[in-house]
Amino acid sequence: MLILKKISEVRDWVRRKSSKGGQIGLVPTMGYLHEGHLSLARAARRENDFVIMSIFVNPLQFGANEDLDTYPRDLKRDSQLAAAAGVDAIFAPEVSEMYPYYPQLTTVNVTEITEVLCGAVRPGHFSGVATVVTKLFNIVQPDRAYFGQKDYQQCLVIKRMVADLNMPVEIKMVPIVREKDGLAMSSRNVYLSEEERRQALCLNEALRICRDLYDKGERSARKLLDAVQDRIRQEPLAAIDYAEICSAELLQEVDEIKENVVVALAVRIGSTRLIDNIVLEGDTGV
Amino acid sequence: MLILKKISEVRDWVRRKSSKGGQIGLVPTMGYLHEGHLSLARAARRENDFVIMSIFVNPLQFGANEDLDTYPRDLKRDSQLAAAAGVDAIFAPEVSEMYPYYPQLTTVNVTEITEVLCGAVRPGHFSGVATVVTKLFNIVQPDRAYFGQKDYQQCLVIKRMVADLNMPVEIKMVPIVREKDGLAMSSRNVYLSEEERRQALCLNEALRICRDLYDKGERSARKLLDAVQDRIRQEPLAAIDYAEICSAELLQEVDEIKENVVVALAVRIGSTRLIDNIVLEGDTGV
Repeated sequence: MLILKKISEVRDWVRRKSSKGGQIGLVPTMGYLHEGHLSLARAARRENDFVIMSIFVNPLQFGANEDLDTYPRDLKRDSQLAAAAGVDAIFAPEVSEMYPYYPQLTTVNVTEITEVLCGAVRPGHFSGVATVVTKLFNIVQPDRAYFGQKDYQQCLVIKRMVADLNMPVEIKMVPIVREKDGLAMSSRNVYLSEEERRQALCLNEALRICRDLYDKGERSARKLLDAVQDRIRQEPLAAIDYAEICSAELLQEVDEIKENVVVALAVRIGSTRLIDNIVLEGDTGV
Repeated sequence: MLILKKISEVRDWVRRKSSKGGQIGLVPTMGYLHEGHLSLARAARRENDFVIMSIFVNPLQFGANEDLDTYPRDLKRDSQLAAAAGVDAIFAPEVSEMYPYYPQLTTVNVTEITEVLCGAVRPGHFSGVATVVTKLFNIVQPDRAYFGQKDYQQCLVIKRMVADLNMPVEIKMVPIVREKDGLAMSSRNVYLSEEERRQALCLNEALRICRDLYDKGERSARKLLDAVQDRIRQEPLAAIDYAEICSAELLQEVDEIKENVVVALAVRIGSTRLIDNIVLEGDTGV
């Protein structure tokens, strides 16, 4: 696997590949790859001539009391998994390469859709995400970039940023990949004890209960959320950060479901914060 | 002159020109062109295969009580002047083309160097500038972009944004162009009455006095600024917004001049706000 540490190396690699008209797919990650990341890489492999994955634990998107220092890292393992998924090159810069002057003066900021859900409890998080993704887009200049639906709000923020700033890149949202028992894949799942791992299933099960009620005709957000919360509260180690039903594009609160909505969960299992979501297709199909 | 109104037209034009390896120079303006703008166009003409000028009065960078509605516009005259200066195409979009959703959710923000001088009296101005320039860069994807030194702080903000966000474009700062009597060229000079026009000379003359004292060995910022303010205060219609000496890169206040500094002025002549500046090369040459 070709591992690039310097921005100049990435620019040279991209120039060589795209000079022959080759299309470039970018898969931005923080590493410690799981099947979710690899499904992004495989999608990029199918739709582009060349695939580059970035592996960078971006300090700008971590809060003061979050897990920046303990976030799991394993570049050797990651490079083997990425190669098997069809990645051609990995961009794994040091913090000093991405932020020679940290924190830098310039940030990219998206309002409104960043002020709810994860944005409400992680101030500055999405500004850090938007800023580092802008940097990666400017360094790689990809034709397409791939993000996972598990971070649904992040996907929306990136799509909105790309539209608002006319960035010449196509954003692809790839469905959530789950463990056999339904737990959404996450690098943070390694934090879970055996008992926590068992109780963590409540996120997916609560969402399945929600979908079943919706399929049976329930359209009241309040009633659907009550069912979601009831299921999660059965687990003694589970504490709900948020459980909300929002419009699928602007993340505005919804009382009665008519258009597409996202049912979004953030739940602390012990000290580990997990997120999950499903999209419900509104009857109007909008 | 080829006048493009749509972003898609610009992308098509650029694709045709750059596909043959042609280098693209971008000259962003708000129109109502004067010799200052045309010197940017000529520099772009010398250094690139193709030159595109944007003409867009960007509402995002105007304050509520500023002159957005009265800002002078004359696209017919501009296109003739631009053609004579070697511009190949003009991008003159409607506000609805640049901001289909206004104000948009996403902005680019630069701190510290935007909080002094013009940034201190025009809140949100440089965020509006950084955001629209980012959009223009993403639409045109130029090899080089040209900005005038008269807006010295704007040049610094753009340079810093490009560095912080790894934008693949080279920023060129072009010297101030002055009328025969020394008044810095500005689209806003048309606002001046005959008497105001005469008194407006105090900006350039104050800066010349400052440079003379500096050349004679004066290194105290306080003493240099006293001389600057004394000259401006001789004009009854002149009111100083600011008169400052700052480090040339980070715009930090300076007491004794050792490194390169900018002497920056903003003065209201009647109701018209004019700016001007000079750079003094520090003895350390840094």
